[in-house]
Amino acid sequence: MSTPGSAPRTPVSALGERGLIDRIRDRLPTPAAGVLVGIGDDAAVFEPERGALQILTTDALVEGIHFDRRFSSPADIGYKALAVNASDVAAMGGRPTHALVSLMLPDNLPVCDVDGLIDGLAELARVARVSVIGGNVTRSPGPLVVDVTLAGTVRRRRVLTRSGGRPGQALYVTGALGAGSAGLGWLQAHASDPSDVPDDAELAECVRRYRRPVPRGRVGGILGGTRAAAVCMDLSDGLGDAVRQVAERSGTGARLETARLPVAAGARRWFESRGLDPVVAAVSGGDDYELLFAVDGRRRGRLRTVLQQARGVPVTRIGELTADPGLYLVRPDGGTVDLPRGFAHF
Amino acid sequence: MSTPGSAPRTPVSALGERGLIDRIRDRLPTPAAGVLVGIGDDAAVFEPERGALQILTTDALVEGIHFDRRFSSPADIGYKALAVNASDVAAMGGRPTHALVSLMLPDNLPVCDVDGLIDGLAELARVARVSVIGGNVTRSPGPLVVDVTLAGTVRRRRVLTRSGGRPGQALYVTGALGAGSAGLGWLQAHASDPSDVPDDAELAECVRRYRRPVPRGRVGGILGGTRAAAVCMDLSDGLGDAVRQVAERSGTGARLETARLPVAAGARRWFESRGLDPVVAAVSGGDDYELLFAVDGRRRGRLRTVLQQARGVPVTRIGELTADPGLYLVRPDGGTVDLPRGFAHF
Repeated sequence: MSTPGSAPRTPVSALGERGLIDRIRDRLPTPAAGVLVGIGDDAAVFEPERGALQILTTDALVEGIHFDRRFSSPADIGYKALAVNASDVAAMGGRPTHALVSLMLPDNLPVCDVDGLIDGLAELARVARVSVIGGNVTRSPGPLVVDVTLAGTVRRRRVLTRSGGRPGQALYVTGALGAGSAGLGWLQAHASDPSDVPDDAELAECVRRYRRPVPRGRVGGILGGTRAAAVCMDLSDGLGDAVRQVAERSGTGARLETARLPVAAGARRWFESRGLDPVVAAVSGGDDYELLFAVDGRRRGRLRTVLQQARGVPVTRIGELTADPGLYLVRPDGGTVDLPRGFAHF
Repeated sequence: MSTPGSAPRTPVSALGERGLIDRIRDRLPTPAAGVLVGIGDDAAVFEPERGALQILTTDALVEGIHFDRRFSSPADIGYKALAVNASDVAAMGGRPTHALVSLMLPDNLPVCDVDGLIDGLAELARVARVSVIGGNVTRSPGPLVVDVTLAGTVRRRRVLTRSGGRPGQALYVTGALGAGSAGLGWLQAHASDPSDVPDDAELAECVRRYRRPVPRGRVGGILGGTRAAAVCMDLSDGLGDAVRQVAERSGTGARLETARLPVAAGARRWFESRGLDPVVAAVSGGDDYELLFAVDGRRRGRLRTVLQQARGVPVTRIGELTADPGLYLVRPDGGTVDLPRGFAHF
């Protein structure tokens, strides 16, 4: 992690602001064409794509709230700070293009940790083809904070909001549920180092998902592009929260069939070992960066296109939006329970 | 400050995330036309002006680093959080259009303080015609943080960077110097309440500038629009820092004439009362959101247009960029001293 001219554990306060900004810029991918002014001026200037709408989102990771440096490496934290924003752009049906990174750094944070953080963020920026074009650095008297702003583009008729749902539309979810909260649960119970993983390979996969969630950019783009989905939202605060928000904003209720919910195998075992109902725990838990979306009966054909093009990403039908405003989990015996809430920030 | 249904000192943690976001949205101006998706979805979507470049900037105010709740009211903090970003857009020659607000809130922060913060931000948003279209709220285990991202537009040939300076160009500055640091100095020495002001009216003006800096949006836009300025930068970290950065990025040196520097009258008296050299203190101090810009000899005519259109905002010639790479203050007797550095974040 060390660079000539600075010892590995040099604190950021010894580097100076300009030195710190230069160091960050040097570790990031070269911006794409269309960036007129990048890192280091009063503001960044770029040219959005012609004929495209501009998406803007921001999401912060705060030490002690969203991450613990005993559980996640600096590179994991940087990666995740961009991933959670990319997940929001995917949930709009868009494509991320440009990012700003706002860092609040404790004085005694080693420079090598800033390097690691930027390296992790740059790793995802390369894969997602995002140009980091500016940001801000400041000291923090308390926690380490990484606040990323992500800009993206989407065509006008391809925007996927939370409010276009109608009764009768089928609900789908990508990937598996509960991995994020099971991974965090294991880390809180066992880990003392950011490289610790459980022996159980499927639970280890949950821990990996917690540390480095995979934003569903490809599926989000296809859902918007094919206009297969009526509404779309990511599961950053859990499936329970997402279904509740989509239903409220669409003026509907929802029913989810517990037998259909794709709870991650490692998460199921972890929740059961803690005496928890695995379905309730998976629906309540946050940190799953999957997509929830609704499809109208007339658009099933388009959904087939999505499934073909999203090769490798599982998509599962889990229930439907209803005219009845209630929000329910339906058990295999037909009994219903109220839909659990998701993760609450306040 | 209270609203029916919530007692004035209700802590934010009692409100819930959705309640908090709804409350914030209700206090903000209605977004301008062209906003397709505003606050409350995964991300905001808007249509930038046709034929315009997109500017993006972010700047955070962190409690204990950039503000003290004993010295500034919540409304002052919210106002300033947008003002410092608007200053960056002005320094690019652009016009601010859309903002995201990322809040990190201590659990015990009263809801009325969040209301005040948003009201202060909304006050400037109305004046500057900025639509607040999204953001993020999260808990903070430490300081209150307000991190604003501001998007703006500028025409291609009107972008004002820090790097277009040439030897011989004259340096100008808007407004007065030292007000921000003198205002903060007085607050640190005397204040115990956000409404405290000194008896000296000119020093009180410095305190007001510290709490609510006035971004030079109009002058920045005119400097870009007329293409009078070759380079431009704001003085957020002080004149010493700004001149140093413009000179380094332009490959020049600079000489400033101390007799020409427009040190604010109240600041001059405050610095002298503390046994400080008022010029050195005014050049070193941060928190002056004025603009530094350089004008080529052939563009003096355009500068006259700027001065006419910027009626009310003083513009003062303070020195020039030089081929000699040194950075100097020139005393009236011809003696020189090294240019003081500005405020250092690390």
